This record gives sequence, structure tokens and C-alpha cells, in this order.
Amino acid sequence: MYRVDLNADIGESFGNYTIGMDAEVIRYITSANTACGYHAGDPLVMEKTVALAKAGNVAVGAHPGYPDLMGFGRRNMKVSPAEAKAYIKYQVGALKAFTDAAGVKMQHVKPHGAFYNMAAVDEDLAAAICEGIKEVDPDLIMLGLAGSKHIMAAHKVGLKVASEVFADRNYMEDGTLVPRSRADAKISDPEEAITRVIRMVKDGKVTAVTGRDIDIKADSVCVHGDNPKAVEFVRTIRERLTAEGIEVVNIAEVIR
Amino acid sequence: MYRVDLNADIGESFGNYTIGMDAEVIRYITSANTACGYHAGDPLVMEKTVALAKAGNVAVGAHPGYPDLMGFGRRNMKVSPAEAKAYIKYQVGALKAFTDAAGVKMQHVKPHGAFYNMAAVDEDLAAAICEGIKEVDPDLIMLGLAGSKHIMAAHKVGLKVASEVFADRNYMEDGTLVPRSRADAKISDPEEAITRVIRMVKDGKVTAVTGRDIDIKADSVCVHGDNPKAVEFVRTIRERLTAEGIEVVNIAEVIR
Amino acid sequence: MYRVDLNADIGESFGNYTIGMDAEVIRYITSANTACGYHAGDPLVMEKTVALAKAGNVAVGAHPGYPDLMGFGRRNMKVSPAEAKAYIKYQVGALKAFTDAAGVKMQHVKPHGAFYNMAAVDEDLAAAICEGIKEVDPDLIMLGLAGSKHIMAAHKVGLKVASEVFADRNYMEDGTLVPRSRADAKISDPEEAITRVIRMVKDGKVTAVTGRDIDIKADSVCVHGDNPKAVEFVRTIRERLTAEGIEVVNIAEVIR
Amino acid sequence: MYRVDLNADIGESFGNYTIGMDAEVIRYITSANTACGYHAGDPLVMEKTVALAKAGNVAVGAHPGYPDLMGFGRRNMKVSPAEAKAYIKYQVGALKAFTDAAGVKMQHVKPHGAFYNMAAVDEDLAAAICEGIKEVDPDLIMLGLAGSKHIMAAHKVGLKVASEVFADRNYMEDGTLVPRSRADAKISDPEEAITRVIRMVKDGKVTAVTGRDIDIKADSVCVHGDNPKAVEFVRTIRERLTAEGIEVVNIAEVIR
Repeated sequence: MYRVDLNADIGESFGNYTIGMDAEVIRYITSANTACGYHAGDPLVMEKTVALAKAGNVAVGAHPGYPDLMGFGRRNMKVSPAEAKAYIKYQVGALKAFTDAAGVKMQHVKPHGAFYNMAAVDEDLAAAICEGIKEVDPDLIMLGLAGSKHIMAAHKVGLKVASEVFADRNYMEDGTLVPRSRADAKISDPEEAITRVIRMVKDGKVTAVTGRDIDIKADSVCVHGDNPKAVEFVRTIRERLTAEGIEVVNIAEVIR
Repeated sequence: MYRVDLNADIGESFGNYTIGMDAEVIRYITSANTACGYHAGDPLVMEKTVALAKAGNVAVGAHPGYPDLMGFGRRNMKVSPAEAKAYIKYQVGALKAFTDAAGVKMQHVKPHGAFYNMAAVDEDLAAAICEGIKEVDPDLIMLGLAGSKHIMAAHKVGLKVASEVFADRNYMEDGTLVPRSRADAKISDPEEAITRVIRMVKDGKVTAVTGRDIDIKADSVCVHGDNPKAVEFVRTIRERLTAEGIEVVNIAEVIR
Repeated sequence: MYRVDLNADIGESFGNYTIGMDAEVIRYITSANTACGYHAGDPLVMEKTVALAKAGNVAVGAHPGYPDLMGFGRRNMKVSPAEAKAYIKYQVGALKAFTDAAGVKMQHVKPHGAFYNMAAVDEDLAAAICEGIKEVDPDLIMLGLAGSKHIMAAHKVGLKVASEVFADRNYMEDGTLVPRSRADAKISDPEEAITRVIRMVKDGKVTAVTGRDIDIKADSVCVHGDNPKAVEFVRTIRERLTAEGIEVVNIAEVIR
Repeated sequence: MYRVDLNADIGESFGNYTIGMDAEVIRYITSANTACGYHAGDPLVMEKTVALAKAGNVAVGAHPGYPDLMGFGRRNMKVSPAEAKAYIKYQVGALKAFTDAAGVKMQHVKPHGAFYNMAAVDEDLAAAICEGIKEVDPDLIMLGLAGSKHIMAAHKVGLKVASEVFADRNYMEDGTLVPRSRADAKISDPEEAITRVIRMVKDGKVTAVTGRDIDIKADSVCVHGDNPKAVEFVRTIRERLTAEGIEVVNIAEVIR
């Protein structure tokens, strides 16, 4: 039996600012990465987001970011491993207050934006993040880029691990994502994206941008809820995965 | 047997900024109110502060403040009860990550500065704070101004409660503190301050600024670690309390 | 000849967050209150907003707020007069960099949200704000609530002054706004709102919520660009004012 | 006649946090780099710092940093050139409000910490910074690392330029500073430091860490006011420079 998780970033509103079609996308995903106040989200938003995920029976994860609200956590920051570890603990703990209060078990942690991207290639940073997660709750699952140093670090630290793939991105032969600066970074055709995901889940393979097939582990697929088209894609991919006999379940069930 | 706790605010450094003689005052107090990143403190500081308290066998409490780093949380902010509750949960949760990681049980929550002062007189705010604490961990003790609406709210919500008194402040007949704007707000003579505290602990009485004795409950005495003189006062008051047969123990033991 | 200004708050986006239909509303207003980074706006947004206003031939003003991004500057904060004055200078100066760079003369300053509301009733705060404005540029016009202490303070300090009225709000007999908490706070019928504004401009009168007519000075009308309906109202009120022989010009021309 | 400026970073306190012996070091320096609220400083601190510099007859410059208070602006952040330019304008403008209010002419701009270091090696960033400065006030002097890309960018943009040298740092053969991670990064002997500075000013030469002499332009020497020893060094170097017949004057006079 094939299984895969669909994860999306939600709870990214802040104060008077609202973004994301959280209430819509929550209907189709199985795991929700919830912003924790550093790059997005505020305590009221976090409270509402956990309630929304709980009501939708969607697993809640923490989505800690760099302390850079102005840059939405998307800009590389040269934080030290000690800082990274402490930032992870702070944000995971802050969200845990809301999941504990709601009687929901926090499922996973997925760093956000530049934090995620830097952890994929920087061993020391990746190790610091994983140690931070483990110190707060050794039962949390670390969700990181399939095949990255972040995944290796999580294994080494002894965390449960889930590998994330991207439906709408091209891969290099070494398993890293084609940089967004390149014209061939994205898979723009939804059909092609879905076909690729099905193959990643069933065969553990994806065709790299060079034309060569590479191995890839797909525990969870990153999807988006920014706009109606994105939400529609999530609805479609979920239907298609199901039609292919792939069970769409949350991360904890995928890696069980 | 008489018992009382000595509490001080620590962990108020931030980034490159260091304040407070934490390593000195920790030797004489029994409970440490730890800043949680909103009015002071940052994740690295919180991690170090919890380690310091643990090493000194001092009970750790959360010291959540208004989101006002520039004003050090000392300025009244008209936040809604829903915001107050969410801010409490966020900050208590963030600190809990560090106490959990350190294998330390968080003992109490004491709101900081203007948050504390407004909660003492505003029932709705006080109720919101207490509900926030209870939702994160119903076993946490709420530390508030003796005789205030905050204490009443904590009882109503069903939290464990500890009443705080001030060694260096004068009281009005209704049990509130004489406002700092008045010339007679403070008790400047250390001997007088100590004598008053001993009487508060043993007899549950203090002489108000009007000359009349009033009832007061003294579970915990607020002391400071800002400067060498303040630390010296903490050392002295602890010796004097002990000499008077008053056990200086943490809040949990006082209210047991 | 009658003259009146239409002002709206623009440039309230922040980082990844976009709000306000700035490009639409700018077509119908004559003065733009531009957020300065404390309650909303960031440097890139400020740069774009000044360019937008310049292109639309709309006068630029500063819209300084409390340092409360999480509350969008709408929560009362008990800042001292010295802090208020310094916050005004900081934010007006920051925006002035962008108007200077764009070769645009900054026309006015209108405090935002809770800063505006508190200044309307607190003489010391109002004086501090006006002194701050004057110190940065004595030629700036202070835009405040018609008939308020803020207006009086600006006269006393020697600033040029413009009185603001609200099309969609009811007034008390003393000229203050009916608090938003009351059911009769707002004028919901657009036609009634427009009729009232025309009378305020032509006759200097408005019917208070009690039914009595009161005197009111209307140099500038506050309008909104949050949603399509609001923008449509601005377009309509501008047409109607013009049809009534009232020239819609910026604040500097109104008070000339 | 030889001339050189002594510059130090001041005004780095924030809210309740005080750092730097500003009142002492101001007596010996000729140019003051004033923090502008992003990495340090707040509006009240900026107001006081400008007043302090004015009273001490010391030229005021802006010291804009990355928006990273928690990291004191010392962590590399991958901001875009457009963001960098806007951040410079915002901060220079904010400080300009205080210099304008005090009737003081702002003399120069020196980016802070990681902003300074990245500008020294990144042409696009350096150009963006210089354009930002020029747009606010084309008369401002850009103070950057001697021989760096930042200096070249300032020349290209058409700004007045001043080259900064470090008394307490070793240089590579290419004129860059020996990284702090290396054991030989610093000159720890005050006498050696002073001798090197005198040679840099008089001969335009310094001995690189390799033993080879390199050319260096010394318009301004960076000194510190963090602690009593640092302030004592500033007093001493000023005396020694004067004794050597080198006039210690502000940047504007040096490059006149």
C-alpha cells in the first residue's frame, strides 16, 4: 500500500494582515506547517490556526523561521548553530502551548524559507535544528528536503524523519532543487507535476533536469494555499493520488 | 513554621545587551521570573537563564510581558483579553521549551511590568491571563499582587495562587501599592523594609501609608538583582528571615 | 469658493503582506497619509508609495504610529510625551528621506490610529506631537480631529493646522466622535454621509447624534481605500463635491 | 600638514538597555557614527546622542544597520540591493530628523557591522547603499573600508568619500582585514597599534600580515568606547597623533 502526506504552510497571517486561503486548503491537506511568530504568525493567529487544523482533522506541525518578519523569513541570515537551536526551541515551544491547550499532539517540525534551505546544505545548522527539536520533544518528526544534509542530520540525532518532495519544482541530478533563478526551476504544467509526484511515491524516482532518473524518497508533498488556483491544484492532486491507490494520510501515518 | 519565597526577575538581557546581576542574585533567591522574549530576553538568554536557575536549584517561572521591547514592557497597552490570553500562552510555551529541554519543571507565571499592574486592577484582563496559564499547564502557580483582582481571578479560574508583597514599597489602605509618582511610594531604609516583610510573613499585617494596619498575604517577596546594592539587600533579607525562623523556600513549597 | 481635501491612509503594506487598494484610491484623493514603518509600512513600501502619490499628483503626508506592528497601531499605549515627540521625529524623518529623494515636498503629518485618538484628548501628548513635527520641519501642516485638543496644541505650537472630519461617523455634541462601541457610531448610508460632508464644508455645521447642530471645521475629509466599495465611495464623494461647486484640492491649497 | 579623523560608534543603547561610554569617548573623537534604530538605538537615544555630539562639537554621521536588533546587526543578511537602498534611506532620514531639529548638519554615513562588511566586498550592495545615501542628501560623505569595493562604488556614484582604517586589526596583502577567526586578526599592543596608525596617516603604508608593506589611505581611524580601556586608548592615540603633528579633525575637514 502506498501512502503519502500533503503538507502546506498555514497560519502566516499577522496582526491586521491576512494571507493564505487557510480555511480552503485545510480541507485537502493532511499536515499543516504553522508559523510561530518569527517570520509570520502571531499568538492569536496561532491559536486560530491550531483550532482550524484540529477541526479539519489535519496534523499540526511547527514552521519556525528566522527572526525576519520584514523579509518573511526568506532571506539567508548567518545565525550561529547555538542561535538556530535556541530559535527552534523557542518557536516550537510557543506553538506547543497552543497545541497542548487545544489537546492536539504536535506532529512535526519543518523549518521555513531560508532556514529550511540553509539547513538542507549546512551540516552544522542542520544538526543544531535537529538537536533543538529533540530537546523540546524527542517524539517530533523532522520534515526536511528529501536527500538533504538536513535529513542526514535528523537521522544522526535520532529523530523520526520525513522526506519532502516538491510537485512544482525541477531537481538537479544530485537531488537538490533547481535554483529559482533558472528558467527551468519550475514545473508549470499541473498534469506533469501530478504524474511526477505519483512516480516519486510509487517508484521512488524522478527525472532530473538533465534527463536522468534519480532516486527520491517522497513521504510528504509540499503544496500551497496562497491563491484559488493553488488550492484547486491541491484538491486535484489529492483526488488523483487517491485514484492511483495512494493513501493520502498525515506524516505520522506515512512513516509509521 | 513560617515560610516565604524570594523572587526576582532574571534573564532580562537581550542580544548584545546585558542587564541584571543574574549570577549573583540567583544565589539568594528561591524563584526566578524569566523573561520570555516580548519585553526582554531572547532564546539564547532564556536557555542560559534556565541553566543558571537549574544549577542554583532555584525554581523557574515565566515572566511574560507586553510586546514592547522598546518600552521594556513597562507601558500600559490596551490589549484585548483575547490578545492577552494568547500572549501569555505564547510566552509561557516558549519558556516551557527550555525548561522541558533542561528537565526542569516550570513552577509559576508572573506577568511583567505594565501587564502585571493592569492585571491587578482589571478583572477581564486578569481572567484572560489566568485562563491562558491554565490552558498551557493547569499545574502552574499564578504569582500576583497580594489582594488584587489578579489573585481573585486566579482563584476563580482554579489555578494555584501565590500572593506577592514588596519589601521596598508602601501600601495604600486598600492593599494597592502607593503609585510611584508619589514621594512616599518607596521604603528606602533597608532595615525598615526587612522589619515590614518579617511582620507581613509572621502576622499577615503591614502598616499602610495612612498609618493604619491592613491585612496582607505574603507568600513571596519581590526582590531585585539590578545592582550590587540590590543584591546585597537580597543576601541580607534572606539571612534575616532565616534568623527569624522563617524558612526561605520556593513558591511551590510555600503554598504546599 | 469652497475647498476641501480628501485624505486616505496608504502605504500600509508590510514585507510580504499587502493591504489597501492604493493604486485605485490614489486616483480620487488629494492627500495621502503614508505609513512610516512603526505600525505599518516598510522602507520599500514607503519608496513605492511616495512614487505612487507623486505620479498621481497627490500630496504626501506622514502617518506616524505607535511602535506596535502586531496591533497595527490601534491599541492605546501609554508613551511619555518625550517618547511621543521622538517617535514623531523618527518617523517623519524616515519618510522625508523618501520624499526628498523623490523631489516631493512633504505636506502634512497625521498621527495614526490610537496615536491620533489619544492626541485628540490628551493635551500633553498633543503638544509633544506638534513640537516634534515643528522641530523636523516648521512648514509641515498638522492634520488632526476637528475641534480637538490636538488642533489647539498645533495652533499653540505655531504649526499650520488642518481640521479633519469623518464622512462615515456620527459626532457627539462636544464635537468628539461617537465611540465605535456604540450602535450609532457610524453613518452607513453613503448618500447621508455625502450630504453631511457637503454641509460641513459649506456651512461649517453637522447634526450631532443628539439631534442638535454643532459647529465643525472641515478642511479635509477622511476616506478609505480598503475595499472596492470604499474606493467607489471616494470616487462618488469627489464627483458630488465637485458638482456642488466645492473644489477638491490638497490640504496646502485648502488652508492657503 | 597631516590630518586624520577619529570615529566611534555611539548611541547604541536601546530602551532600558544602556551600552557604550558615549559621554566619555565623545571627548576624544571627531566623528560619531550614530545608530538609527535598526540594529541599535531608539528615537529617544538618537535625540540624546545628537545632543551629546553637538555639545561636544563632534560631527554626526548615520550608522545604519540591518533590521536585526537581536543580532545587533552583526549577522550577514541576504537583503536585495533594492532593500538595502531603502533601508539606508529610511535610517539616514530618521537620524536626519534629529540633526535637523538640533540644527546640526549630518556629515557622513557609515553602514554598521555586517552591512559594512558585506558592502566592502559586494559591488551591487555597495552601489545600492551609495545610491541611497546620495538620494537623501548628495552632500553626505560615505565612510567605508579603505581600498574596498564600497569605496569604489561611492566614487562611481559621485559621493564624497572617506577611507577608514583600523588601529587594532591586521591587514591582508589585498587590503582586506584579516578575518576575526584567525589568531593574528588583531593588534593587541596599543603602542604597536598607534605606531601603525601614524605610519598609515603619514606614509600611506601599513605592513600586511605577510610582512609586506601595502598602500592604504587613512582618512579616519575607527576607535571604540565600549569600556574604560578602549576610551583610554582613544585619549592616548589622540594625544600621540597630535604630538606627531597630525591634526585630529572631523571627516569633512580631512577630505576638504
